[in-house]
This record gives sequence, C-alpha cells and structure tokens, in this order.
Amino acid sequence: MNNAWANIMAHAADAKAKPLSVAEAFSDDTNRFKAFSVQWGDLLFDYSKQKITPKTMELLLALAESAQLSEKIDALFSGDRLNVSEQRAVLHTALRDSTARPLWVEGENLTSEIVATQEKMERFVSAFRAEEKKGITGLPLKHCLCLGIGGSGLGPSLVCEALAPYKTTDIQMHFISNIDGETLSAVLKELPAEQTFCLVSSKTFSTLETRENARKVRAWFEATLNDRAVGHEWIAHHWGAVTAAPDKAKEWGMIDAHIFPFWPWVGGRFSVWSSIGLPIALSVGMDGFRSFLSGAEAVDQHFRETPFAQNIPVLMGLLGIWNINGLGYSTQAILPYADALKRFPSYCQQLEMESNGKGVSTAGKPVSHQTAPVIWGDVGCDGQHAYMQLLHQGTVVVPVDFLVPVRSRSGHQDLQTLMVANALSQSKALMEGQIDTETPLKTCDGDRPSSTLMFSQLTPRMLGSLLSLYEHKVFVQGILWSVNSFDQWGVELGKQLTQQLLPRLMCHTQGQNTPNNRTDSSTEGLLTFFHRHQGSDGQYEEQSSTGYGRNGGDRNSDLQTTG
Amino acid sequence: MNNAWANIMAHAADAKAKPLSVAEAFSDDTNRFKAFSVQWGDLLFDYSKQKITPKTMELLLALAESAQLSEKIDALFSGDRLNVSEQRAVLHTALRDSTARPLWVEGENLTSEIVATQEKMERFVSAFRAEEKKGITGLPLKHCLCLGIGGSGLGPSLVCEALAPYKTTDIQMHFISNIDGETLSAVLKELPAEQTFCLVSSKTFSTLETRENARKVRAWFEATLNDRAVGHEWIAHHWGAVTAAPDKAKEWGMIDAHIFPFWPWVGGRFSVWSSIGLPIALSVGMDGFRSFLSGAEAVDQHFRETPFAQNIPVLMGLLGIWNINGLGYSTQAILPYADALKRFPSYCQQLEMESNGKGVSTAGKPVSHQTAPVIWGDVGCDGQHAYMQLLHQGTVVVPVDFLVPVRSRSGHQDLQTLMVANALSQSKALMEGQIDTETPLKTCDGDRPSSTLMFSQLTPRMLGSLLSLYEHKVFVQGILWSVNSFDQWGVELGKQLTQQLLPRLMCHTQGQNTPNNRTDSSTEGLLTFFHRHQGSDGQYEEQSSTGYGRNGGDRNSDLQTTG
Repeated sequence: MNNAWANIMAHAADAKAKPLSVAEAFSDDTNRFKAFSVQWGDLLFDYSKQKITPKTMELLLALAESAQLSEKIDALFSGDRLNVSEQRAVLHTALRDSTARPLWVEGENLTSEIVATQEKMERFVSAFRAEEKKGITGLPLKHCLCLGIGGSGLGPSLVCEALAPYKTTDIQMHFISNIDGETLSAVLKELPAEQTFCLVSSKTFSTLETRENARKVRAWFEATLNDRAVGHEWIAHHWGAVTAAPDKAKEWGMIDAHIFPFWPWVGGRFSVWSSIGLPIALSVGMDGFRSFLSGAEAVDQHFRETPFAQNIPVLMGLLGIWNINGLGYSTQAILPYADALKRFPSYCQQLEMESNGKGVSTAGKPVSHQTAPVIWGDVGCDGQHAYMQLLHQGTVVVPVDFLVPVRSRSGHQDLQTLMVANALSQSKALMEGQIDTETPLKTCDGDRPSSTLMFSQLTPRMLGSLLSLYEHKVFVQGILWSVNSFDQWGVELGKQLTQQLLPRLMCHTQGQNTPNNRTDSSTEGLLTFFHRHQGSDGQYEEQSSTGYGRNGGDRNSDLQTTG
Repeated sequence: MNNAWANIMAHAADAKAKPLSVAEAFSDDTNRFKAFSVQWGDLLFDYSKQKITPKTMELLLALAESAQLSEKIDALFSGDRLNVSEQRAVLHTALRDSTARPLWVEGENLTSEIVATQEKMERFVSAFRAEEKKGITGLPLKHCLCLGIGGSGLGPSLVCEALAPYKTTDIQMHFISNIDGETLSAVLKELPAEQTFCLVSSKTFSTLETRENARKVRAWFEATLNDRAVGHEWIAHHWGAVTAAPDKAKEWGMIDAHIFPFWPWVGGRFSVWSSIGLPIALSVGMDGFRSFLSGAEAVDQHFRETPFAQNIPVLMGLLGIWNINGLGYSTQAILPYADALKRFPSYCQQLEMESNGKGVSTAGKPVSHQTAPVIWGDVGCDGQHAYMQLLHQGTVVVPVDFLVPVRSRSGHQDLQTLMVANALSQSKALMEGQIDTETPLKTCDGDRPSSTLMFSQLTPRMLGSLLSLYEHKVFVQGILWSVNSFDQWGVELGKQLTQQLLPRLMCHTQGQNTPNNRTDSSTEGLLTFFHRHQGSDGQYEEQSSTGYGRNGGDRNSDLQTTG
C-alpha cells in the first residue's frame, strides 16, 4: 500500500472513530454545495451530501495523482494495450470521436474503419427506414428482431427504451437476450415473418444463448415462410449480424451489406457506441445516434481535459473508493427518477460489476482491498414504496446516486416537478435524518451518503453523456484498484461446467450415467429431481401453453410434505 | 445477546478463522445433499451448497427455539397483534385459508368478511370476463388500467406477468405505478376510453402517486369521452377501487359493486392475496386466482406443522441469519431462471427490505446486530453476461438463491433444459471454484454460498407457494432480529420533506423565497439548477414529445464545461 492509500485509510479510521455529521457540516460551511458540486453545461453533479470533508477530497485527489491517473487516461485514448491479459487496446472512445483525426493502432488507421462502418450503418438504416428493405415476398420490412445478450443486448435495448420519444420511424424493435422459450414464443407470435428482419449481435457469432435463439428463429421463419424459405436468398433479405466473425455470418447465408464489424478493441459492455448500436440508429435515425455519440464525446473531452477537482467521472470514481475502501460500504444504489431509465441500473450493474468485480490485480496477485460493490437500483418514486425503508432505517448503509431530469418530455411537467420534489426529499432525508426521542421507531439516523446527477432533459445527447460518465468512473476505479477492467475470466468456469452438465440433463434415463461423470451430491440430487419432474420415467410431459384452462392444470399436482 | 446468539457468533468466529471448504465437505460426506435439502411435493429446496456444517444447523435451530419461534408462528395465524407499533393483527394468511373455519379478531369473524369479498370479486370478474361490464357508450370493457404503487402494484403486476400462459381472457391489463408522465401518455395513447376500466388500488385512497395518476386519467377520460363524461354515471361504468377508505371512492363517484375492501390487518407488501389481487383474477379467472391462493395455503400449512429441521421457510430464514449475522454478508441475490419471474427479485426486495430494513427493535431500542440485507437480482442466463463475474471473482461475497423451473410452459423444453444446465453450473462454479496457478486471473475462490429452489413448473399454485415461502422467511427473520416486520416508519420523513419542498419547486421565480424557508445549500443548489433549466426565467419551455425529430432538439443545447 503506497502512501496515498495509507493516508486515505488513516483518514477513514478517524472518520469512523468520529463520524462526520453532514447536516452540521452544511450549517458550519455555507459554501459546502459550491465546493462539492460541478456544473457542466446542462448537467449538475452534486456530491455535497457525501460523507466527506475538504481533507477527504484532498487525499482522494492525491490518490489519483499517485496512481498516475492522468497518464492512464492518455494511454486509454492513445490506444495503448490497457487490456493486458488479452493484450488489446481499449478504444470504445474512438467510436464517438467526431474529429476524424487518424488513430494508428498496430499499423492500422482505426478512424477510417470506424467512419466506413458508420457510413455502412447509415446506408442500411436509411434504406430500412425508407421501406426500401424488402422481405422475400416483396413487402417492406417493418420489424427488427434483435438477438444479443449482455453487452450485445443491454445497451441497445436500454437506449431504444430511454429514447422512445425520439423514435422517428414505425419500425418496431424487439429484443431477446435470454434462452427462454416463453419469451421467444410470445415475441414470434406477434411478428409477421414476411416483414421481419433478424439481427444477430454476437462478437463470436457463437454465444450460446444467441446461437440457440437464432436457430429457433430460423426454424420459425422456415415454417412460416414455407416454400419461400429455401436456399439462401431469403436469408439475404431477412438476416443481418454484428460480429467479429463475418465468415460465420456468411456461412449462415447473410450478405455483406448486412454484416457489420465488431472489433476486438471494443469490449462487449462498452460496445453500444459501435455497430452494436444499430437498433438505436434504426429507431432514432442516424442523426439521433450521432447525437447520442456526441454526448459521450463531450464527456470524453471533459474527462481528458478537466482538472481532477472538477472532473465529474474522476470525482465519481474517487467517491466510490471512499465509500467502498474508506467507509466499508459494499453496495451502491443507482436510482433514476424516470421510467425511461428503468434499465439504467442494470446497465451500470453490468458495466461496474463485470469490469471491476475482480480479485486479482493486473500484476497477477490477489488484491488486498475491496473492489467493485454490488450495483443495484430501480426507478423512483417506486422504490420509496419498497426498498427505501431499509435505506433510511436499515443497518446496511447504501450510498445512492440519484439521477434526476428537470424537464418532462411528455408535457406533464406537473408530474415531473413532483418527481423532482421526491428525489430531492429522499436525498435530504437520507442526509439529515430525524431523531425522534418520543417514538424511537421513527428515528432515521441520517448521514447516509448520496450524489445527485441532475440534468435538463433526457435527450439522446444527454443519455450518451450519462453512460460515458459511468464508463469513465469504472475506468478510474479500475486504475486505482490495479485491476484489469476489460477482461472477464470469472465467467468462463460456469460455461465449461454447462458443457459438462448438459449431457447429464439431456440424457433422459438415469441408468446410463457411468460413475466417472458423477459429481457432488447436490448436483446429483438436482439432476435426479430434474429428471423425475420433467415427466414420468424420463418421458417429457407435453404441457399445453394454456395448460391451466384446458386441463385443470396445476390443481392435479397437489403439494404434499414429503421432505 | 442470549446464549443461542452467543453460540452462533462464536461458531461464526471459528468459521471465519478456519473457513469451511464446501467442496471438501461434499467429498467427505456423501450424505451432505440428503442432510441439507428438503423435498416438498413438486419443490426441492437444496441448501447443501451453503457454508454450513451439521453443527451450524444445530445452533441455528437452537436459535429458533430460543426465540420461541413456534409460539410466534401460532400467534401469527391466531391474529395476535404482531404489528405492535400500529397495534394490529397481521392476517394475510387468513386470505388464503380455504377451510372457512371462523377467525374471530376483535369481535369480528374475519372469515365471513373474506369469503364475502371473494364472492364479490368473483361476481365482478365473471361479469367482466363475460363482457357484461359495459362502458358508458354501451361497448364491453376490454382493458383494465390498474393504478397502484408499492404493495398495491408490484404483486398484481408480477403475478399477471408470471402467469401469462394461464391467461384465459382477452381483457388487457395495464399497470401504472410511478408518476411519470411519459409512461402515462404512452399507455393512454393505446387505450380506447370507451372500453377501459380504471382500477385504483390504494389503502388510503390518497397515496400521492396513485392519486395524481387517477386525476390525470380522469382528465383523459373526460377529454376523450367528451359529453358522455358528465355527472357521475360514467364513473359508475369506468371506475373501481381497492381501498380501506370506501367513502373517498364513493366521493369520486364509484359504485358499491366496484369498491373492494382492503383491511387494516393486511400490510401492503403482503396484500397480493386480497382484493389487491383483482387484476390477477381478471386475467387468469377466479379459479386460477384460487389456485394461486392454494399454493400459498399449502406453504402456510407446511410452515405451521413441519418440524423446523424440515421447514423450508424456517430454514431459509435461518440460513439468511447465518450469512448476514454469522458470516457478515450484507446482500442477497435472487436469480430466477425464467423471464416470467423477472419481477420476482423486486417483489422480494420490497418484501424483505421494507419489512426488516429496521434499526430499532420492537422494544424501541437500537438493534445491536445487522438486520435485512440488500436484496437484488435479475433473471439468468442474462446475469451470466453481466454481474456474475463479480459473484465468481469479486471481493464481495453474495449469497444466491437460484429459482429453477424444470419444465417449460411453452413447449421449448430444449431451451429450458439448457437454462437448467446453466443454473446448476453457476451454483456449482460458485461452490467449487477453480484454482489456476498458471494464470491467477482465472482463479475463482469458490465457497460462495447458494441455495436452489427447483420446482416442476411455474403454475399459479407454485407461484403462490414461492411468494409465501419468502413471506414466511421474512417473518422468521423479523422474529429472530426482534424487529416489527409489519410497519415502515422510515418512509415517512421523505414524504414530509416532499410536502415542504414542493412549493419551492412550483414557485417559478426564485425571488419570492423568504430566508426562513431556505434549507441546506445542496438543496438550494439543486433548486436553483431546477429553476434555471426548467425554462429561461422561470418560464416552462414546452418540449414536443417528438422533440428531436421536429426541432433538431438536443443538438441546440451543446454541453460545455462550465464547472
């Protein structure tokens, strides 16, 4: 532990021994908001309700200096191989750089590739939106079914949902990520195959879930289009892909004009700015998509050029360090006061937990400090009628980020104002608390930290800025924790075990299992239960999809205590 | 701290000093699964991958005895005033008691009230589903718009979504909880007012969000139905309520037949079994709703009658105590492998965090131990491409509940089997881990605890059982922590502050604020930003809902660094 870390930890020990009253700090220093907030155009970052003093910020900023954060930021934008375990550059920021300055990485000018790809996206999007893309029967395509999971699904679906008021087409977007037959059936039931385009988003073109869904969708097309779905011509009309494995997409039958590149220097959870964002461009137009990129670009510039004391993503990262490593809080809530941002906490959850949920440093040693917290949250005001009770009175302290748009996009400004009043009240209540000596049950301790990101309106540009702020926050924390934010080895073991277990589940009769593929008794017990309940004697019992209505369904299977 | 608690904590100190290898425990004891699992009809509760030994369970069961849990369970079902701060009985279990045995509480036989109400629900539901309920213009009602937040919204919307394959009507259900004008506009845009019934669910009939939404919906009806929406007659056709304040519903203009009681002895987060479940009954029919109740009733019986060592909700509660108080884990993930259960983690989040997110005991003293953890989660397999990285390799240990249905309800059993393989692999990977000495980055520590609830199929009955299991788990923990699981004082402060702040937000010019209503500088700063960005000089700037497309939108508002 270097000096800067040691200073932080010593300061934290003091803070725990003699806790700060934030309410008193506000009384003592009328300048506190001014000192601990940054206004940046249409966005305000207020962190004055965090449990910090000027000394805290001084030590945190010194920590950033000691980690050579400036140099690391330069290295990020220069295309250095920051993803050390996979020896790759990390260049999602290049995707939103509108200056068109050349960026040479390993002998290639990425900028020209990026520009060419955006032009290809634009041609596709313009033609699709102009109804020039036709299905095999000659009808214009009106639905885009997007298959993709994790980074290939969450970003586009979040952004399309969040920017619904900016949608300028009647093309309908449908997203499927999980391998759940019910979702698949429900979506396909509503789709006219003749007018449906299916976009497969998968870096490898072989992600288990996406591949299985694509296979099912193909069978559906073939059954529905019937004799029009033979050979490869119909595929040329109805299928496209975003992938780093174009050959596999071609094998599937897709044409060049419908295959969009996904580069090795873009991580899945940072890929919404790339061709993975195609559904966004389809929905809000290429201009809207560029506007979304421009918001992220503005944050990139802010991140590169602003002194740390005024640098929002740097401050967000440092405050997280203080809460996690200094004060020992192991979760972070993200609470947007806008239904449109319902998926935003999930997006940040992926971004932070997959990037920095690591226990080994870039040097290959176990880390000696806490890394990423559990990120969770949902929209306000809903949470006020659910989990906020714990945030005010529980024994777990949860730092909160409130995300609050000022202006309604629907004309119901009265409701929006009420939402803002609620958001402000929650942060104030968390901070001030309330001592009730008469009725101790009503006492709220207060001093529960929060930051507020308030912004004028949720435009495409603002959404781009918000996502980019969290991306860079994650980068800052990865540097300070010395972990590689750009790999995800922890997910491999589960994938391997799935391949091992699958034959045991698909084998309907238990007798065929030889002892040498037996495993722990829990897994064996679960397998036995699975086989027993999949249908008697290994036979799959077909259930009608309206089972309850047709056959009295579940009432036949009385639950009885047998355990 | 009594002896039983002291024993647990001493045992936990040992466990932390010399951590158990669960993988070794499986090798050493081939009986482990059998010892640490309960099979109960179509449901298997496997907790053998928790970090426990036989000694742990012995001490936990002793803790339950020492807290007189049996007596408390009896008291719950007998209608004792377990909600001590509000001096109320807690009788959601009576709502699903099909034995019709009388239950006398404070001189009233609740059973006859419950039966009468269910009959009233049945009449309403049958008529509605038979198209006998007509709008003011004589057309049959085909849409039910449900307004309700927290306990009045989450339960019905979860259950309707989860039981979609059991829907036996073409009546469409729409749920609005938050005060978000965008959601409201989007929903109303699709609704034919003449064929829409609006159901207001609010215990007090004055919940801020629900009241505001009802006001907006009423204005929409009046604007749309035009001269047919005068007087009270149209209200009689188009409005209904579930409320404990029937007089207010009548003032609104609603008729008796459309007003369903909400009793003081049912807490909001336990109310899905009451009239609050009306949308469920509309959707799956009264038989389906009764089947849902019967699943909960079966669990009630199991909870009352089964020895603790085989009692699933008691075991779930105790294991939580071990993870939280013994091992110090402050979050709990709930991961259903079914898209249909997407809202299930939110439901449990509300149930647990609002019930037991308390810092003061029933005796009015600050508690000296941790209470409810942060509950979070989402559906698998999606999470495997997001937060599961942290669960395998992060520095925060997160206990997991896996919820795994065996059979598909859609006929795609191949996909379901793949889902099950993934769920089993994740729990196995969390438990076993993998040491990779060559590439330390690939090392997963293992010994990350999980339980698996595997069940035959997600029927109405099974869903009732699952919700009831978590309800009783919460009850068990509330007893062991000595907190009142049935009040929620922590949410009051925020409500008060909202009333105080609202005038400051609605007042468009800042100058009118007198110093005596000024508050902390953070709130002042946020108010200033709000007023500045709501429109220049306090004038509200009207934004078209398709702002981007019509006026170039956000590109005019360039973000610039000013901070």
